[in-house]
Amino acid sequence: SNEVKECENYFGLTLLDRRSDKRTDSKWLSKKQSHPTTVYILFSNLSPLVTLGGGIESSQQPEVKLCRLYHKDVEQCMNQTEEGTLIFLGVELQFHMSLLAACKGRVLQEDEEDGLVAWFALSVDSASAEKFKQTHEDCYFLHPPMPALLQLPEKEAGVVAQARSVLAWHNRYRFCPTCGSATKIEEGGYKKTCLKEDCPSLQGVHNTSYPRVDPVVIMQVIHPDGNHCLLGRQKRFPPGMFTCLAGFVEPGETIEDAVRREVEEEAGVKVGHVQYVSCQPWPMPSSLMIGCLAVAVSTEIKVDKNEIEDARWFTREQVVEVLIKGNQRSFFVPPSRAIAHQLIKHWIGMNANL
Amino acid sequence: SNEVKECENYFGLTLLDRRSDKRTDSKWLSKKQSHPTTVYILFSNLSPLVTLGGGIESSQQPEVKLCRLYHKDVEQCMNQTEEGTLIFLGVELQFHMSLLAACKGRVLQEDEEDGLVAWFALSVDSASAEKFKQTHEDCYFLHPPMPALLQLPEKEAGVVAQARSVLAWHNRYRFCPTCGSATKIEEGGYKKTCLKEDCPSLQGVHNTSYPRVDPVVIMQVIHPDGNHCLLGRQKRFPPGMFTCLAGFVEPGETIEDAVRREVEEEAGVKVGHVQYVSCQPWPMPSSLMIGCLAVAVSTEIKVDKNEIEDARWFTREQVVEVLIKGNQRSFFVPPSRAIAHQLIKHWIGMNANL
Ligand SMILES: Nc1ncnc2c1ncn2[C@@H]1O[C@H](COP(=O)(O)O)[C@@H](O)[C@H]1O
Ligand SMILES: Nc1ncnc2c1ncn2[C@@H]1O[C@H](COP(=O)(O)O)[C@@H](O)[C@H]1O
Repeated sequence: SNEVKECENYFGLTLLDRRSDKRTDSKWLSKKQSHPTTVYILFSNLSPLVTLGGGIESSQQPEVKLCRLYHKDVEQCMNQTEEGTLIFLGVELQFHMSLLAACKGRVLQEDEEDGLVAWFALSVDSASAEKFKQTHEDCYFLHPPMPALLQLPEKEAGVVAQARSVLAWHNRYRFCPTCGSATKIEEGGYKKTCLKEDCPSLQGVHNTSYPRVDPVVIMQVIHPDGNHCLLGRQKRFPPGMFTCLAGFVEPGETIEDAVRREVEEEAGVKVGHVQYVSCQPWPMPSSLMIGCLAVAVSTEIKVDKNEIEDARWFTREQVVEVLIKGNQRSFFVPPSRAIAHQLIKHWIGMNANL
Repeated sequence: SNEVKECENYFGLTLLDRRSDKRTDSKWLSKKQSHPTTVYILFSNLSPLVTLGGGIESSQQPEVKLCRLYHKDVEQCMNQTEEGTLIFLGVELQFHMSLLAACKGRVLQEDEEDGLVAWFALSVDSASAEKFKQTHEDCYFLHPPMPALLQLPEKEAGVVAQARSVLAWHNRYRFCPTCGSATKIEEGGYKKTCLKEDCPSLQGVHNTSYPRVDPVVIMQVIHPDGNHCLLGRQKRFPPGMFTCLAGFVEPGETIEDAVRREVEEEAGVKVGHVQYVSCQPWPMPSSLMIGCLAVAVSTEIKVDKNEIEDARWFTREQVVEVLIKGNQRSFFVPPSRAIAHQLIKHWIGMNANL
């Protein structure tokens, strides 16, 4: 259960307090943009700029770290980029805390330095990215994003999840879906407004103006005997990899019903009781993975070949072996930082009979 | 806890098996469209066509029922409407079951009647709606939708949630957000594709093509003493109504962190442990309300007047009285079919000390 807590945090844990109240404070935002302590993280084509960290992880993969840049480093690219590709991410938590302690009972003056260390994400075009790599030889853009993003330190993964999801939204949602006109970006990158004066999207509040988050259910399906679980694979997976079934929640559907529908659609297995375990933001581009245990009430598997390639019942022993020894000849599961791994582990830790 | 089960189902429970596999079977869909057993439900301006049911509910409100129409009733409007406003909702569950029983072991012929009763939602323009009301005097469009939708029988509410969310998506997402071009509707209403040949949205799979579902956290915040809960009100609420705090999940955020952020932003109260309770689709226009219990670790309230008008700690006794006696002089809570009501009731049913 400690393990699941950890998983709850990968991509979810963050260094930052989002301070959404500052998104509408354009004076504060513009002051922070050029402040010397402000941290910039760079993206090109939705990939973050990283560098190799000193430490080697337990998984034997070299650890990569975000490149933390300052205003002086990005000033030049910023002048060449449209304003829209700059996202306010929040302020560092620690500084915030110590500041609050220091200022207790005293209200800051209007123009006084508040000591908050702001973070921004800046997306640059390929030309600027190329130039940047030439001047910063130890840095590179992490591409393709998966599974490489799983190599980031936990706390940085949360910041990247936030930044990448919002940038991906700007990338795909450039025009007003209500009328097709151009839009302008506001509120530190968290809002976009149609530029056509009489567009219906400007009357009232509509989700067209706000970043999209797609809820996805991902479920560890347990055999009625309590000692087998259902794992499947898609064609595009690396050979031998099996994982929990998953699918998008549809409009007008509960989490629990989405679990039942997806398991029946993909594997032909009927599910009864469903229990929420934990969740994980998944910035590909902007999903919220909602992890559940699901108890099957039927056992025959009928794979829908349009959706997945294979689905099988695995014994508890098979799964324990894979988790302990890692990559087996027969099959393997996603790495420990993926919520699927944590759901599987959670089941292994449970009593044999539910 | 039985009560919470019920709530889990309002707007979530449905009469229908969505049969998403049929969405791509255009031959089947068009055959069902003109089949005499097929049920149509009508919408105008996102409001469903209803009629007064015989029964009177316990809450003293007259029960309204969906008008179930047939092909012959809608044939004329359909010819006048663009194709896009027709949504395939699924097939009736009961018929499906008995059919499966009857056909056990026997595969249906290609052209054989499958006995499935299909449901469609049809959205019509104001002119057609007017004409329709003249010929069907006992029917009317339920407007404004809230709280009127809460008067529907539970099973019909789920169908309306599904239909209204998808129709609202078509209403607000008419143009390709990636390039601003026109789009065409496919897959029984669940997909829209950009009509511009070289649009980047056509390369790969993107959420721009699929209906949007917005995850929202709604939380019963419990005082560290276990005997008070935090309820708030927005300016636009009816006078005296207090309810659970709520807010949209942001990109890159877990459910648990969204709860903590929203409670701190809106009421200045810090939250520690968060526990998922149940969820409810909320078709205004397309939210998924994720209901949680949240344990406060601080007690001082600082209301953010931009977000809410008031927030207060209420005692267990005050809340019990409101739940039992209904509308009190001091305050009242949302009706029993709203997830907020169920979360409050769930807490009341719990031990005084967590
Ligand atoms: N997907 C969304 N749809 C509507 N409002 C959103 C969304 N995401 C964030 N918001 C913000 O939430 C506010 C509305 O919240 P509420 O008062 O709970 O309906 C809006 O004014 C927006 O600032
Ligand atoms: N919001 C969404 N984003 C992407 N795909 C979606 C979405 N909603 C439903 N889908 C469907 O889910 C399929 C992709 O699922 P997956 O293979 O799990 O990535 C797509 O081919 C779509 O048919």
